[in-house]
Amino acid sequence: MLIVQKYGGTSVGTKERIMAVAQRAVNTKREGNSVVLVVSAMAGETDRLIRMATEMHDAPPERELDMLLSSGERVSAALTAMAIEALGQRAVSLTGRQVGIITDSMHTKAKIEHVKAERVQLALKAGMIAVIAGFQGVTGDYSDVTTLGRGGSDLTAVAVAAALKADLCEIYTDVDGVYTADPNVVKNARKLDRICYDEMLELASLGAKVLQSRSVEFASKYEVPLVVRSSFSTEQGTLVTKEDTDMENVLVSGIACDKNQVKLTALGVPDKPGIAAIIFKAVADKGIVVDMIIQNVSADGRFADISFTVPKTDSRSALEITKSVADSLGARTVIMKDDIAKISIVGVGMRTHSGSAAKMFQTLSDNNINILMIGTSEIKISCVIEGKYSELAQRELHEAFELGKTA
Amino acid sequence: MLIVQKYGGTSVGTKERIMAVAQRAVNTKREGNSVVLVVSAMAGETDRLIRMATEMHDAPPERELDMLLSSGERVSAALTAMAIEALGQRAVSLTGRQVGIITDSMHTKAKIEHVKAERVQLALKAGMIAVIAGFQGVTGDYSDVTTLGRGGSDLTAVAVAAALKADLCEIYTDVDGVYTADPNVVKNARKLDRICYDEMLELASLGAKVLQSRSVEFASKYEVPLVVRSSFSTEQGTLVTKEDTDMENVLVSGIACDKNQVKLTALGVPDKPGIAAIIFKAVADKGIVVDMIIQNVSADGRFADISFTVPKTDSRSALEITKSVADSLGARTVIMKDDIAKISIVGVGMRTHSGSAAKMFQTLSDNNINILMIGTSEIKISCVIEGKYSELAQRELHEAFELGKTA
Repeated sequence: MLIVQKYGGTSVGTKERIMAVAQRAVNTKREGNSVVLVVSAMAGETDRLIRMATEMHDAPPERELDMLLSSGERVSAALTAMAIEALGQRAVSLTGRQVGIITDSMHTKAKIEHVKAERVQLALKAGMIAVIAGFQGVTGDYSDVTTLGRGGSDLTAVAVAAALKADLCEIYTDVDGVYTADPNVVKNARKLDRICYDEMLELASLGAKVLQSRSVEFASKYEVPLVVRSSFSTEQGTLVTKEDTDMENVLVSGIACDKNQVKLTALGVPDKPGIAAIIFKAVADKGIVVDMIIQNVSADGRFADISFTVPKTDSRSALEITKSVADSLGARTVIMKDDIAKISIVGVGMRTHSGSAAKMFQTLSDNNINILMIGTSEIKISCVIEGKYSELAQRELHEAFELGKTA
Repeated sequence: MLIVQKYGGTSVGTKERIMAVAQRAVNTKREGNSVVLVVSAMAGETDRLIRMATEMHDAPPERELDMLLSSGERVSAALTAMAIEALGQRAVSLTGRQVGIITDSMHTKAKIEHVKAERVQLALKAGMIAVIAGFQGVTGDYSDVTTLGRGGSDLTAVAVAAALKADLCEIYTDVDGVYTADPNVVKNARKLDRICYDEMLELASLGAKVLQSRSVEFASKYEVPLVVRSSFSTEQGTLVTKEDTDMENVLVSGIACDKNQVKLTALGVPDKPGIAAIIFKAVADKGIVVDMIIQNVSADGRFADISFTVPKTDSRSALEITKSVADSLGARTVIMKDDIAKISIVGVGMRTHSGSAAKMFQTLSDNNINILMIGTSEIKISCVIEGKYSELAQRELHEAFELGKTA
């Protein structure tokens, strides 16, 4: 088999951890596989570099930031290659440029346009383990280094696996798979053996930090079989793969919780056509991503209350712009609520089975948890509740949907 | 003027030092000059990376070592560019590859074959300060990063200055110029205003650590005017330039002391033709560079004593190989003396004036310092003496040749 293994920052965080990664790669190779590694910067290194950069410049030029940050992965790739060689197995470290990970020139958040991987293939043919510096690419004319944004090493791994048509892309991290809920909150949360791309995508974007969503999208598009597993154990992990009929029998696969949003409400906005458009255009113009939106119209139909959620990090500027727009529209006031949690249940089975929304609302209601907002997609239902109820809600929903039981 | 400024590790060793470097570069630019910087890795960084590498592998593969070590200069180049931008001046960091510093593929000690510098010229034309990561190049096919060996950033600066036909190449370091002797040893050592390439070359290779000898050779070959000065002050520094008639009036320019050699003596070697060749071939085959050599033949002409010096770091393997060769030749024994010092006086005036050797020997003799070996070139005389006399010898020679007085 051709296997791509991606190791995150904690997996290469110390000398001993790098040696363990090298040993695992060599073992995989000696079992008769072709092995490609993708490594992140050593844990803490990227933060250290960013701290140095912000000491130099309040808003460091992004091209320079990429030059700086990409060095972290070069270091861990070179060290990992050395550790593999020390075990008697040939290895070569390769940068994003050397692999030919061609991106656009949007520094610090570049998009992959194409992966050549010629040098990877040459290395594999020569019986070597290729160790790729994750998180980085190069502009189309090979002139400047770019980086792919936080969690970009996952994307490197998936894109390289797709280019090489790898049989498997293993994402090694500090958890041993994808769980039905956060095991720190729900004691009997269960590790899933399998999950489909769409479910993983919902869970990833809903706050389960196991995989970066862009890499799941990429894996889904090119049908790269992903395995999420721990670099600290030999546990099997969770396979992220194409949806199959088995999966549809499971109503809900998992529960996610996102506590990194705030809720803004513009009260008493005169209810005229185009009001919502004006508010959300102003917010979008500031580069702020709005997640959930609800609008109530007053009994007499003259005023509306508009609520929406934005990431906590954008709360201040979102409040500011919303206030100024609301003022100009003659709204009564704008209030912000920051202690909220968005709880979501996810499962492809919802496509074909009804009743899960009702069960979710009932469960919350049975526990006197007030629902502030509701949002749905084909395979998920999200409820915004008060933050203090988030742990209780996760536990009760986990119980209600019987997620602790093996399917 | 087009000025290349090179800053060593201590000059970019902290946030504050990098900001000071940025300020100096911006000042130089605002005086109407075009400015190119070459920076080393932050002080201690290269050692830190080497330590990590040796923890991974007893003898890290050199290609991987270059991948690892070159990251240090990328970091300082990017940070310096950010600091310059923070001062309102546009800047761009460039790696060895981006500059087009083409080298052979001898990893960890690559030789520069060609410098393109197209992107540097484009940056200068756009009014930017180019900040080049020192110490690194790229192989001819642009595939792999190489490094130029310790002190390689000096070489980067000189090579780039030559390629750009710069008016001046300033080497900023932690000393404020080239001195007539080591100021830590000789109190009235005097900073030289000017020195010629040949003298600098002798001083550099004789243990004055101000400039790396390869970079002086390169500067001499392409007649790049060098200035050695301190990044911690605004003192004028020392100009290293072409020899002129003024310089010939000065008999001796400076005194150097090298305590990093050991002396090996093969006693009682049967004196037959080719004996020396056998010994030195064996030593050279181990990659050990022999510096001084003397050979005495016994009164009856049947035996010879052969003495030579090698770097302290190679003493063990040099002793081993010499013993084994001496044994096979029927020599009596091999002895090693490691507490020695090589004291040298250097000056282009020696070409046209006689008597400096006699004065040197007399001065040492007057102080009861025994001379163990003597070596000469056109512009220098070196004496190996016992290590314990090295400070005394430097002070007395400095006095005898009146180096403390302004010429």
